[in-house]
Amino acid sequence: MRLAELSERSGVSIATIKYYLRQGVLAPGRRVAATTAEYDESHIRRLRLVRALIEVGRLPVATAKEVIGYIDDDSLDQTMRLGAALWSLPYGPEPDESDPSVIAAGQVVDHLLETLGWTTAREIGALAPAHRALVVALATLNRLGYPWGPELLLPYAELMYQAAILDLDIMDMYPTAAEKVETAVAGTVLVEPMLQALHRLAQEEEAARRYGLS
Amino acid sequence: MRLAELSERSGVSIATIKYYLRQGVLAPGRRVAATTAEYDESHIRRLRLVRALIEVGRLPVATAKEVIGYIDDDSLDQTMRLGAALWSLPYGPEPDESDPSVIAAGQVVDHLLETLGWTTAREIGALAPAHRALVVALATLNRLGYPWGPELLLPYAELMYQAAILDLDIMDMYPTAAEKVETAVAGTVLVEPMLQALHRLAQEEEAARRYGLS
Repeated sequence: MRLAELSERSGVSIATIKYYLRQGVLAPGRRVAATTAEYDESHIRRLRLVRALIEVGRLPVATAKEVIGYIDDDSLDQTMRLGAALWSLPYGPEPDESDPSVIAAGQVVDHLLETLGWTTAREIGALAPAHRALVVALATLNRLGYPWGPELLLPYAELMYQAAILDLDIMDMYPTAAEKVETAVAGTVLVEPMLQALHRLAQEEEAARRYGLS
Repeated sequence: MRLAELSERSGVSIATIKYYLRQGVLAPGRRVAATTAEYDESHIRRLRLVRALIEVGRLPVATAKEVIGYIDDDSLDQTMRLGAALWSLPYGPEPDESDPSVIAAGQVVDHLLETLGWTTAREIGALAPAHRALVVALATLNRLGYPWGPELLLPYAELMYQAAILDLDIMDMYPTAAEKVETAVAGTVLVEPMLQALHRLAQEEEAARRYGLS
């Protein structure tokens, strides 16, 4: 298809597509004449991902380019591509390793992962950005006077594991490795706001059930 | 206790406490001399909440003041105070009611709430910011080419309901209504980043189990 059709089918303006092409987050089409290029389904799919990252996830274009670079890296297998792409997403503040509350939270997280039997997460440890983000979140809770230990964290972790199973089931419905990885990365950005909204709505529902509506 | 002790016990600098007092997000102490005020445990607790909202939740001071105003409003009962405080937290972009994908997502959310039997959420509908945020998140997913229907949303909603039960169990461990509401509001801001980190860590663990580590 030509640029005009790509724009119409993807819902992205021609000017924005040209911007994405210049920035290298969208691969060039196949050149069929001096001023004409031909685009295909892979461009439609890639535009979905780019919009998810930039418009919804508010990633800087340079970060989106990095994420996409990992997805397209043929030297990596599927797990590595997925891992590298997810690790290059933004994760919030880094832990201050000299802070005693961070050290204590790190021990609680280690203990939690041991109890859960999450052996990969345990092995990779603080190399994983999600591990570091968890330590920061827990250290902050504790520092602000909410002494959460592993016993409070455990049931939440088990729920999030159930969510991860759903996530990967959805990802596995896509036929090709490229689509699986793209869906997983877009899903991370797009599904998190949905989970947060569902969580807050569930809190209101359960509060109404427990305490009544006034 | 005096200002110096309040600062030491809360871990908040004297300058910051004075700033919070001036902004009206921390109630003044009981004046015991022309230049001396006496603070108590309620100030310690309030500082925890203020820090959670401002330092972690990145709320503007004016928004934090609004949230706290609802918590302190004696004309409201516990459910209403909690509801009003939670509704004044930031929720992301508002739905564009003229957008067909927003209208379609609204119908999916209605159907979902019906199936779940969340009668309060169904009744309150789009008046609740969490309901509107859910519609926006779902409309965005659909618009970007991920056609999520109620069947995909349902198991996530059920997991988030389990999380809400845990949240309110923790809240109910606090003895007074004031502490319950403060804990719930601080918890919303502090627990969400933890859930997000646990979710991403669980995705990596499950991916490693399904596809192996390379």
